[in-house]
Amino acid sequence: MNKNYIIPNEWSIIEEGFDGENTKASESLFSIGNGAMGQRANFEEDYSGETLQGSYIGGIYYPDKTRVGWWKNGYPEYFAKVLNAPNWIGIHIRVNNTNLDLNMCQVSNFRRELNMKEGWLSRSFNAKLQTGEEVEVNTKRLISVEYNEVGAIEYSVKAINFSGELTFSPYIDAGIVNEDANYDEFFWETLQIVEGKNKGCIYSKTLKTEFHVATAMNVSFLLNKKNIDLKQEVVKKEKSLTYNYNLQINEGDTATIYKYGSYVSSLNYNKHELIEAALNNVQVTSKLGFAQLITLQKKSWELIWHASDIKIEGDVKAQQGIRFNIFQLNQTYMGTDARLNIGPKGFTGEKYGGSTYWDTEAYCIPFYMGTKSSHVAKNLLLYRYNQLDKAIENAQKLGFKNGAALYPMVTMNGEECHNEWEITFEEIHRNGAMVYGIYNYVNYTQDFEYIAKFGLEVIIAIARFWHQRANFSADKNKYVILGVTGPNEYENNINNNYYTNYLAKWCIEYAVECLNKVNLEYPEDFKRIQEKTNLNGDETFNWLKVAENMYFPFSEKYNVYLQQDGFLDKELIPVSDLPKEERPINQKWSWDRILRSCYIKQADVLQGIYLFEHKFSREEIERHFDFYEPLTVHESSLSPCVHSILAASIDRMPKAYEQYLRTARLDLDDYNHEVDEGCHITSMAGTWMSIVQGFGGMRVCENGNLSFNPQIPKEWDSYSFTINFRNQILKIIVKQTEILFELDGSEDLEIRVKNKLVSISPNSLVKL
Amino acid sequence: MNKNYIIPNEWSIIEEGFDGENTKASESLFSIGNGAMGQRANFEEDYSGETLQGSYIGGIYYPDKTRVGWWKNGYPEYFAKVLNAPNWIGIHIRVNNTNLDLNMCQVSNFRRELNMKEGWLSRSFNAKLQTGEEVEVNTKRLISVEYNEVGAIEYSVKAINFSGELTFSPYIDAGIVNEDANYDEFFWETLQIVEGKNKGCIYSKTLKTEFHVATAMNVSFLLNKKNIDLKQEVVKKEKSLTYNYNLQINEGDTATIYKYGSYVSSLNYNKHELIEAALNNVQVTSKLGFAQLITLQKKSWELIWHASDIKIEGDVKAQQGIRFNIFQLNQTYMGTDARLNIGPKGFTGEKYGGSTYWDTEAYCIPFYMGTKSSHVAKNLLLYRYNQLDKAIENAQKLGFKNGAALYPMVTMNGEECHNEWEITFEEIHRNGAMVYGIYNYVNYTQDFEYIAKFGLEVIIAIARFWHQRANFSADKNKYVILGVTGPNEYENNINNNYYTNYLAKWCIEYAVECLNKVNLEYPEDFKRIQEKTNLNGDETFNWLKVAENMYFPFSEKYNVYLQQDGFLDKELIPVSDLPKEERPINQKWSWDRILRSCYIKQADVLQGIYLFEHKFSREEIERHFDFYEPLTVHESSLSPCVHSILAASIDRMPKAYEQYLRTARLDLDDYNHEVDEGCHITSMAGTWMSIVQGFGGMRVCENGNLSFNPQIPKEWDSYSFTINFRNQILKIIVKQTEILFELDGSEDLEIRVKNKLVSISPNSLVKL
Repeated sequence: MNKNYIIPNEWSIIEEGFDGENTKASESLFSIGNGAMGQRANFEEDYSGETLQGSYIGGIYYPDKTRVGWWKNGYPEYFAKVLNAPNWIGIHIRVNNTNLDLNMCQVSNFRRELNMKEGWLSRSFNAKLQTGEEVEVNTKRLISVEYNEVGAIEYSVKAINFSGELTFSPYIDAGIVNEDANYDEFFWETLQIVEGKNKGCIYSKTLKTEFHVATAMNVSFLLNKKNIDLKQEVVKKEKSLTYNYNLQINEGDTATIYKYGSYVSSLNYNKHELIEAALNNVQVTSKLGFAQLITLQKKSWELIWHASDIKIEGDVKAQQGIRFNIFQLNQTYMGTDARLNIGPKGFTGEKYGGSTYWDTEAYCIPFYMGTKSSHVAKNLLLYRYNQLDKAIENAQKLGFKNGAALYPMVTMNGEECHNEWEITFEEIHRNGAMVYGIYNYVNYTQDFEYIAKFGLEVIIAIARFWHQRANFSADKNKYVILGVTGPNEYENNINNNYYTNYLAKWCIEYAVECLNKVNLEYPEDFKRIQEKTNLNGDETFNWLKVAENMYFPFSEKYNVYLQQDGFLDKELIPVSDLPKEERPINQKWSWDRILRSCYIKQADVLQGIYLFEHKFSREEIERHFDFYEPLTVHESSLSPCVHSILAASIDRMPKAYEQYLRTARLDLDDYNHEVDEGCHITSMAGTWMSIVQGFGGMRVCENGNLSFNPQIPKEWDSYSFTINFRNQILKIIVKQTEILFELDGSEDLEIRVKNKLVSISPNSLVKL
Repeated sequence: MNKNYIIPNEWSIIEEGFDGENTKASESLFSIGNGAMGQRANFEEDYSGETLQGSYIGGIYYPDKTRVGWWKNGYPEYFAKVLNAPNWIGIHIRVNNTNLDLNMCQVSNFRRELNMKEGWLSRSFNAKLQTGEEVEVNTKRLISVEYNEVGAIEYSVKAINFSGELTFSPYIDAGIVNEDANYDEFFWETLQIVEGKNKGCIYSKTLKTEFHVATAMNVSFLLNKKNIDLKQEVVKKEKSLTYNYNLQINEGDTATIYKYGSYVSSLNYNKHELIEAALNNVQVTSKLGFAQLITLQKKSWELIWHASDIKIEGDVKAQQGIRFNIFQLNQTYMGTDARLNIGPKGFTGEKYGGSTYWDTEAYCIPFYMGTKSSHVAKNLLLYRYNQLDKAIENAQKLGFKNGAALYPMVTMNGEECHNEWEITFEEIHRNGAMVYGIYNYVNYTQDFEYIAKFGLEVIIAIARFWHQRANFSADKNKYVILGVTGPNEYENNINNNYYTNYLAKWCIEYAVECLNKVNLEYPEDFKRIQEKTNLNGDETFNWLKVAENMYFPFSEKYNVYLQQDGFLDKELIPVSDLPKEERPINQKWSWDRILRSCYIKQADVLQGIYLFEHKFSREEIERHFDFYEPLTVHESSLSPCVHSILAASIDRMPKAYEQYLRTARLDLDDYNHEVDEGCHITSMAGTWMSIVQGFGGMRVCENGNLSFNPQIPKEWDSYSFTINFRNQILKIIVKQTEILFELDGSEDLEIRVKNKLVSISPNSLVKL
């Protein structure tokens, strides 16, 4: 564990005391957002210390020119970078003409709080300037869920030991850069700067992609809680607009600036409307006032928490961890816009180009299905449906034909945004996750119509891919899949990765099952799809030949499926025997050494067993868990949750709890030594799964009903979680001695608990 | 074949007619050099068409900052780039103030010749300017072998249809750039510009590496073959020095400028001496005069050809090809400076950082041993010996210990200059070539003392590497080598590459053999080395355990060793069945498709059989050749020669001849569609081997004597080659009906020809 400075609290993330060493980590952890826009917890005032400035608008990206060591055919020429957007939060503060900059002051009473219950960020501190003046500063900031193009700041300065001149200089600035830029290019061009009385706007566009964005601000002032009007001095530069406001304050006075900011973009408006829309946004919300925005924000978050909160009693760190995860997921994606998706860093950092990984299908869809109405998960599936043509193009580039699709490893608009050959071209198991996402959704919602209307086209294209990607090995008299990278990226270009082969076989079989069902139940859709995809009867016959004769590496000696061909040639030394100073191995070992070692970055065979648990006996699960868990270093954020869930399912509660803490507090405790770059958003959905599917033991039965097999770690007094199941909200409370169920809905619900059928009526508490 | 414009000629490379499309290819093919410096055949006068400017100084490099897609532990932070050096050849030519630029003129009678027999480059053409003036230009250029810091140009302009003003503006320019620069940085800084009467000098240094270089010029003039003195106008800029000389010429007049250029560097001088040394060089050689330099150049090349010429009668293209190969090798490396080596592009281009690959040991050492006195090959070995510490450091970076060494894949100064993990970390067979180079040299020269004095330390460090790099597979009950890339780079991160495992085993066994021999014959050296390397007795025992229990993949079905584990899982479709439009596959297929295909970029198992041919029966060779040759696409320049030699050894003369032509005329006919970037220098040594070891069937017998088994392609009337064998020069002439031997030396030589012993006396012709 690297850092341990976050103060445990049930509903808030709290930092006390100022330490420049933690600034970048805190900027990530205290990030705020509303699914449409978001930002790192950068300071409003100037800061000359280490910082990563970041403010982001969902769906706005830049296709940066690819940087490679050695070009390989099939690499994308460009790929989408998450884009640092114009700064709307900035306020230079000057006291008697000296800049307020925490890096240059004596700072005391520093406190920062991210209130997750209500959705705001606050900061307070005393700062003594080099020139001797001391101020007390209190700030509060939010990004509104209700008005999702708006953010607001309350920034108060109290003169502690002086009377003199205070200057507020709020600004907006489109002259921002990306740290993650391959060739240090500027990504934005400023088109127009509009000034006005206490408000202003910068109209800019991204280069290449030509997203047009208007960034507006509106400011107002209080002196000792009374409105005042200040003279405005305009400083207009090439890419920024600053207003200077001077006021005389006396010792003990408190001056406050309110700053409202707004982003609007050509994703949602005609270009010529943008400036007006942005200015209108800040005008409306400033009229409403900061206090009212806070009230609305509380209400918005109350609704979110109602359907998604997980309460843990008796373990405040575990409690803080899970709420942080749920909070950040909601800040990243609310599910209202099918063009958006869940970036690996959300709005907390710019690392990793693109916004969409297989994480969405394998990890995030269960979370959003379980905590929101079903149209949200459907939106996530439609995102891929809408990018099917690009996935077919992508496969064509690699030599596939006849409508086979390979979804990109990372994407923003359907095009591949990654260029390491061993990932881009070979980590093809992602294609299986696309189908699994559909299967999972239909299973949970029973919305089979989705397959007839949309999903089947995706499923066919992916079945075609697997059929073409496998080849017949005369030597093995089986179909093999050569040259892949599995979920365990510490193996590259391997043959017959168990997980990949399993998914390939399953995808084909599921495709044929869906085809038959659509043929029977939606004959018109079947005809439409048949024509659109040029599907013929022989084709599925050929697919099935591959599926039925798929090869799986297996060890007689250990009685387990092997992660890949040749895995047993490695020296199998458990992780526990590795010297501590050699871990994490991805920071200590050279890549070749990692590759030829037995160490597993993230669940791979176990990921497959997790996804298809019902196809494995308990003994099989135990055997595979006992073989692979000791070799797994969990250096991917996506790993511990899967191990936690499987451990719980085979009654290994200490291991399940250990892995739960690792996933829940991954960023808060900075296990991977990289939280300064941003939070690991997608794995947060895995944390949710470790509670709901792990300890809670939730599964979907074959008849489509829910089953639960709840357990509780001995460290906890109780925990509870809610499940949105077909638009009713079921709450499960698990105590050491009893389990309670409560249903917020209108229809009776039949569930299976520890293998007994239980019927639950709305608005009644069922005890077990 | 891409290009077919080079006119066949026994001793010259000739181009007739001007075609801008060929300019860059010709710049490569007509390159000149002397082992210490060299340059592409750029025009002296301005040229606004497509061109790759390049002038290079041996041993001068720049450590460019590494560019990667995704950083991996163990990558070098910098790597050495071949460096375009200040331009000394430039002469702006103006006619009545209009620039002469072949891209803007009507050009006729264009002819370019690279005379390989005498070592000079000439060019002649008529050019009609846009303004109507027509000139006839004749140029000749050489880079002196005798004065190896000097080059000289004769440039004549004849006024065909006008009288008027002609301006010669010779210049030197340190404001040059590298096309191959990762971040478009400048690599040179200009320190001082010295002007003088008809001479001048630019003193500059490379950034970071701080190589200091003085580039000097000296000019003189003729009008109608009579010396004239012209008024000099000086134009001094930040990074360049230009002198303008105007003269009035009448229709029919011919004006000539002689320009002498020199590079001297801090590799060979104290810094404060550089300017004087460079100016002195151009002064001395200009006094000598251009004609005298040409005479000396002829003599120098006569000596080189005497010891290395291969004559082919009846096939002028084959003749031109082999001489071009021998000529370029000599232009790249003369063997006089142990700090230099043989860059893959020599002085013909800047592609590929670094100057030294395993090509040197596997391909070039045989050539230099066979055509020069033995100290040249020894210098090449010492180059690696001198870099042993860096190779040990390099291995440490990757986690090896106890003095194990991994030589870099590409280097300039001993540090790694490559950063693709599958090559840098995994193409470790190169380490075997280091030992093979020593073995080969000692075998040929019988200079075992080299091992006692130098070689053994290298051999021990490499044996240690193999011992640590292999691991015991409990599953196979053998030692395995996992995660490698063999010579066939169309397979990455494979297990148990036959070639690599074979070399590893052999290296260890050879190390123990050498240790025992040094212990017996050079006990003092043994003691010294034992102390220096901390060698203990157990160690070799442990090495041998690995060597003796090494695993080799083998197919019972085909009765051949397999290139790697799992090779038979691939679909084995012969190259001849590939559609033509899909080749070369490295330009048409995505990387993953190449990797999972069966296609072999270059000899791999066959490379091993070539190196250790005496350990394989003829039947084994035939079986492996018949299995692998149909799957080999020869998309590496290093491949055809090995297949040609093996084909000859099993009497497949049509295949041997086909592959010979491919290697001999690779660049002249541009088989790989890339000659514009520079020539493939190191594979040219392979061409030489295909004659000497292939058709000539030369081998070294177990007793250290030479044997020959000459054959002749039916397309040739005869061919002859010479061999420098222990400082005597043996000439072998092979005709369709007889074989002749001639010895230039002082001692009788006993050789084995077609398994008969033959004794040859000096200066007598022996017929067979």
